[in-house]
Amino acid sequence: MQNIVVVDPPRASTEDAARLGDYGVATVHEAAGRVGYLGPRLRPAWPGSRIGATAVTVLCWPGDNLMIHVAVEQCRAGDVLVVATNSPSTDGLFGELFAIALQRRGVRGVVLGCGVRDVAELREMAFPAWSTAVSAQGSVKATAGAINVPIVVEGQVIHPGDVIVADDDGVTCVPRARVPEVLTAAAARLAKEEASREAFRRGELGLDRYGLRSRLDEFGISYVPFEDSATAEETR
Amino acid sequence: MQNIVVVDPPRASTEDAARLGDYGVATVHEAAGRVGYLGPRLRPAWPGSRIGATAVTVLCWPGDNLMIHVAVEQCRAGDVLVVATNSPSTDGLFGELFAIALQRRGVRGVVLGCGVRDVAELREMAFPAWSTAVSAQGSVKATAGAINVPIVVEGQVIHPGDVIVADDDGVTCVPRARVPEVLTAAAARLAKEEASREAFRRGELGLDRYGLRSRLDEFGISYVPFEDSATAEETR
Amino acid sequence: MQNIVVVDPPRASTEDAARLGDYGVATVHEAAGRVGYLGPRLRPAWPGSRIGATAVTVLCWPGDNLMIHVAVEQCRAGDVLVVATNSPSTDGLFGELFAIALQRRGVRGVVLGCGVRDVAELREMAFPAWSTAVSAQGSVKATAGAINVPIVVEGQVIHPGDVIVADDDGVTCVPRARVPEVLTAAAARLAKEEASREAFRRGELGLDRYGLRSRLDEFGISYVPFEDSATAEETR
Amino acid sequence: MQNIVVVDPPRASTEDAARLGDYGVATVHEAAGRVGYLGPRLRPAWPGSRIGATAVTVLCWPGDNLMIHVAVEQCRAGDVLVVATNSPSTDGLFGELFAIALQRRGVRGVVLGCGVRDVAELREMAFPAWSTAVSAQGSVKATAGAINVPIVVEGQVIHPGDVIVADDDGVTCVPRARVPEVLTAAAARLAKEEASREAFRRGELGLDRYGLRSRLDEFGISYVPFEDSATAEETR
Amino acid sequence: MQNIVVVDPPRASTEDAARLGDYGVATVHEAAGRVGYLGPRLRPAWPGSRIGATAVTVLCWPGDNLMIHVAVEQCRAGDVLVVATNSPSTDGLFGELFAIALQRRGVRGVVLGCGVRDVAELREMAFPAWSTAVSAQGSVKATAGAINVPIVVEGQVIHPGDVIVADDDGVTCVPRARVPEVLTAAAARLAKEEASREAFRRGELGLDRYGLRSRLDEFGISYVPFEDSATAEETR
Amino acid sequence: MQNIVVVDPPRASTEDAARLGDYGVATVHEAAGRVGYLGPRLRPAWPGSRIGATAVTVLCWPGDNLMIHVAVEQCRAGDVLVVATNSPSTDGLFGELFAIALQRRGVRGVVLGCGVRDVAELREMAFPAWSTAVSAQGSVKATAGAINVPIVVEGQVIHPGDVIVADDDGVTCVPRARVPEVLTAAAARLAKEEASREAFRRGELGLDRYGLRSRLDEFGISYVPFEDSATAEETR
Repeated sequence: MQNIVVVDPPRASTEDAARLGDYGVATVHEAAGRVGYLGPRLRPAWPGSRIGATAVTVLCWPGDNLMIHVAVEQCRAGDVLVVATNSPSTDGLFGELFAIALQRRGVRGVVLGCGVRDVAELREMAFPAWSTAVSAQGSVKATAGAINVPIVVEGQVIHPGDVIVADDDGVTCVPRARVPEVLTAAAARLAKEEASREAFRRGELGLDRYGLRSRLDEFGISYVPFEDSATAEETR
Repeated sequence: MQNIVVVDPPRASTEDAARLGDYGVATVHEAAGRVGYLGPRLRPAWPGSRIGATAVTVLCWPGDNLMIHVAVEQCRAGDVLVVATNSPSTDGLFGELFAIALQRRGVRGVVLGCGVRDVAELREMAFPAWSTAVSAQGSVKATAGAINVPIVVEGQVIHPGDVIVADDDGVTCVPRARVPEVLTAAAARLAKEEASREAFRRGELGLDRYGLRSRLDEFGISYVPFEDSATAEETR
Repeated sequence: MQNIVVVDPPRASTEDAARLGDYGVATVHEAAGRVGYLGPRLRPAWPGSRIGATAVTVLCWPGDNLMIHVAVEQCRAGDVLVVATNSPSTDGLFGELFAIALQRRGVRGVVLGCGVRDVAELREMAFPAWSTAVSAQGSVKATAGAINVPIVVEGQVIHPGDVIVADDDGVTCVPRARVPEVLTAAAARLAKEEASREAFRRGELGLDRYGLRSRLDEFGISYVPFEDSATAEETR
Repeated sequence: MQNIVVVDPPRASTEDAARLGDYGVATVHEAAGRVGYLGPRLRPAWPGSRIGATAVTVLCWPGDNLMIHVAVEQCRAGDVLVVATNSPSTDGLFGELFAIALQRRGVRGVVLGCGVRDVAELREMAFPAWSTAVSAQGSVKATAGAINVPIVVEGQVIHPGDVIVADDDGVTCVPRARVPEVLTAAAARLAKEEASREAFRRGELGLDRYGLRSRLDEFGISYVPFEDSATAEETR
Repeated sequence: MQNIVVVDPPRASTEDAARLGDYGVATVHEAAGRVGYLGPRLRPAWPGSRIGATAVTVLCWPGDNLMIHVAVEQCRAGDVLVVATNSPSTDGLFGELFAIALQRRGVRGVVLGCGVRDVAELREMAFPAWSTAVSAQGSVKATAGAINVPIVVEGQVIHPGDVIVADDDGVTCVPRARVPEVLTAAAARLAKEEASREAFRRGELGLDRYGLRSRLDEFGISYVPFEDSATAEETR
Repeated sequence: MQNIVVVDPPRASTEDAARLGDYGVATVHEAAGRVGYLGPRLRPAWPGSRIGATAVTVLCWPGDNLMIHVAVEQCRAGDVLVVATNSPSTDGLFGELFAIALQRRGVRGVVLGCGVRDVAELREMAFPAWSTAVSAQGSVKATAGAINVPIVVEGQVIHPGDVIVADDDGVTCVPRARVPEVLTAAAARLAKEEASREAFRRGELGLDRYGLRSRLDEFGISYVPFEDSATAEETR
């Protein structure tokens, strides 16, 4: 493992990141072509936050938060800290004191492929955090790692400067180079969703709206009255 | 797998379903003889909801929500949509747009043996959902499944028309034919619980109330002063 | 397994326990030298509670809450009930009725190395509970266990009379004999944390505050402009 | 839970069961239309066995093997014992002594939705066992359950008399009424598989054999020389 | 965490330990009163070994095997190394080189509450190992821990000098002071098991042998002909 | 998700890949600087194989093996097929028929971030496979994916043409550009390990060999006679 701190990597625009954040995880993930989602194990420390921000990436040794101390200095307004550990760990590498330091710098939140602690304090100070565990387990500062190198968190590669969108649905990553394209697709998708929302409120069915009804034969789906179904005999 | 949509299966009465819902999961599960509970992995998407409703069952291919689109049309007021996948999957097959369509039809909630998404939106529109995961991972509409056949969710068989009771304790299923019997038992249990509640508030002990004290010998339980216990020596 | 009820074990002072509770899990765990934390699987049944209390320990057979009935009588004001099962189980051995009985006695909460139920009711009556599962699965009263013997919950030994501190970060245990020492260390740590909080609010960096900057060489960490990093070439 | 022992349920023919066993789990599961598989958590206690047998079903309380003692008497030659617990448990409810008793009766193996023990002894006496855990944890005989009622093991309903096929790939269930149909389909599938085996040994491609090549356009799949792919730029 | 190496703790007799090993895990666990078993997550790195040995305990920081290097010197013939990490970790802290060093000293095996590596080599040199994971993930030597202090592995407290018995069923621990008592109980149990083995081979039933038949009424168990059971109606 | 098949990506030399394979996973992982290991969840379908090969990467939809059919044609002698699914899945996307087709082409094995089936047949034909699950669950061919794009399997990025080394310790990945460097480092490490092996066989201690003894003070480790340790009082 190279022990390096990459300084000042190019980032997506923080305005674009914030705009992606406003669309939310599900919409951005769909707009990006259903790629980039970090999966169901990353959960918010407290419900109700939603951010879009540019990634500062950190690779730590399990049980060791030395590199987060180093990383704070590399963060600036509009960033989100994204932390991976070199092997699976639930230890709480991040807590309130780090959150204060990051909030001071305008950082929008933290994504941890490990544990978080001081959950009550983070909620109170409204600092958004997503993690794969909540754990008060303390850490040492003994082994180096890397900052602003590509890392993998929950099955997705995060490069420094990528856009991270996170809310109650979890976390998704948009590569820096794809941000403009995904912004456009998200706007289009939002319009389409809003039209569907209206249609569904009026009682239209997805079967019709998405042209699925005419394809049911092709899918091999047939309709059976309950009386003719095997279920009828089995039903208590 | 038979690709069929069973139409208009008989359902338990929606009024009975609602009444069972009012008793809550723990009481109904006990009243039913401690059977039917879907286990600890099904969690509410947001806390504080409680429903009783009749099941419309859906069997989907993992990563594919085609059959949920088909199922919406089969739902009516007082139902709950219950979704299983053919093999383990955490993908978010259900989200806000489906919830709008179902809410329009008077559906009381959704139970997903897979993932849910749009959690913030579901909470805002007060549409109850229970799932084994939260995931924004998008799905395709490519492979058929079945509707209103018996399915297994988290170790329990659900037949269409069964009553589903769900709250912050999870989800339990009452077979249609047992609904009247369980309603009666639940009423009796509630009365008994209320009496116990009062007794415990007054300081009575379960040991006495449930006649356990006289059976302690039979269980082989003996009382030991701390000084005589091995624990004493070990204690720091 | 010895089927005994150890009566009236010595406890840490309930005032000391409450004071440790005020410091919270993360601070107490650190003050104790980073030992005693019960890990990330113990979660609060509802968010926002924080307790410090003396342990009454219970060892149950899986799926059987007989010994909790016996344990209630052994609890007094300032205690917390701590329950382990003899083998892994998620069943909901504890619910509202027990909570009423314990609240009447001045018990501050419950820690369950198994399941809890009646979550909505516990939240409503503000009775704090931590557990490894939420489950409505009912239990029998058929097999004996032990009370106030040392038990292991999530990797930590709990002796009767130890202090349990629990909040949204989980649960930590302070052995009775170490309570005065840990109280002192927690006070010192709080002062130090408060100073750090102020420093970080002013913009000071942990790198400087903790003397890490001068040790970066020793750790083998080097700073690399983005242009010179391999990352640059790979970045999209 | 009804505490009953259903005596002498009708079974599929033991010869048919054995013949299904010879086809193996994967072939039978496919022949049945890709339904009935008990999933990846059921593993053989030792590798290399393969059975087809008729199910005697047992429902136990977690940590309690009373009902297995009762079930032995209900087993006859050609059967397989299939055990579920009323809630999740890893305890080793079954071991060598049971295996001796069952082997004496001509029983072909055991499937446990809980733990198994005496693994070395079972391997030595060549008694096949599949389980969700290996655990030496001992059990009590204190709480009743049921025998030869429908049970759910790892997401599949097993009725008494159904055919269980199990090998190194896990366990699959064929409902009694479907046995003749699945036997026919399995024979057909085997013939087809053998032809494919030969074709693939000669170098034919599945793309061609299964008519997929002509559908690649329809799937939207395009071929790209490496030089023109985004991958090229990123590759180290 | 105290960073100490406790030198030369008293151990159970290595001959007694070996004799307990010969009885195997299941028998010793039962003989000890069904306590001490380390649960289903500890699995052998290769099948077929069985040991009884005296514990040298090691507490490591996750991802760090410094203390195993220190521990080797504290091991002597008849010992088994038992390793816990301070928080959950799957990293492979132990491999072939350590095994060579321990085998040279007459150590009988290793039990790891974390990962093991060099599995093929350990099997070849017949060095027994049990672990909660197999992982090649390398470790650092940066943070101190403790040796021959009480540790918790998979829910059981292990003191230095305790007897560890391990085989294909997992691992169980017998406290040093209980060794003579458990040896006696194991001999008695073995005789009883051998008699049962013979009885079951002759066709006797556990129902009769253990006096359960006469208690079936007390358990509330009734026998029902298939034709009269609800199952009959439901069966396909 | 781009649905593309990247044709003929550059690969590491198959001879180099085979040589890395001879060193085994643990040595190569260390030689590469402790990076690239795919973690403890990837297990061999049968014990005793060891390969080094160049990766052909496949990205499938969960429950769908269409792209593996497409991928076979892209494989050549010395390759290993590496399969990821777009979201978590345990389904058995790969079995005997694929293995025959790949073996015919000189492919050395398969690594599956999902399930494998036909385990008995794969062992018999000695086709090496690593997977995160064993599952007979059948798949459809309905949704496109990608071939020879970078994929993530168990936390590591795999590019087409990278070297995969796999044995009983799991799987590690060496990026194509680093192969020569890692080969050199592995040779050096092997020599060093062989010297250590000899030293440990002679009884030398790692404490001395690795210069750790002189650093024990620095680590804060002290030696305590058992009589003076707190442990002594607690020991039973």
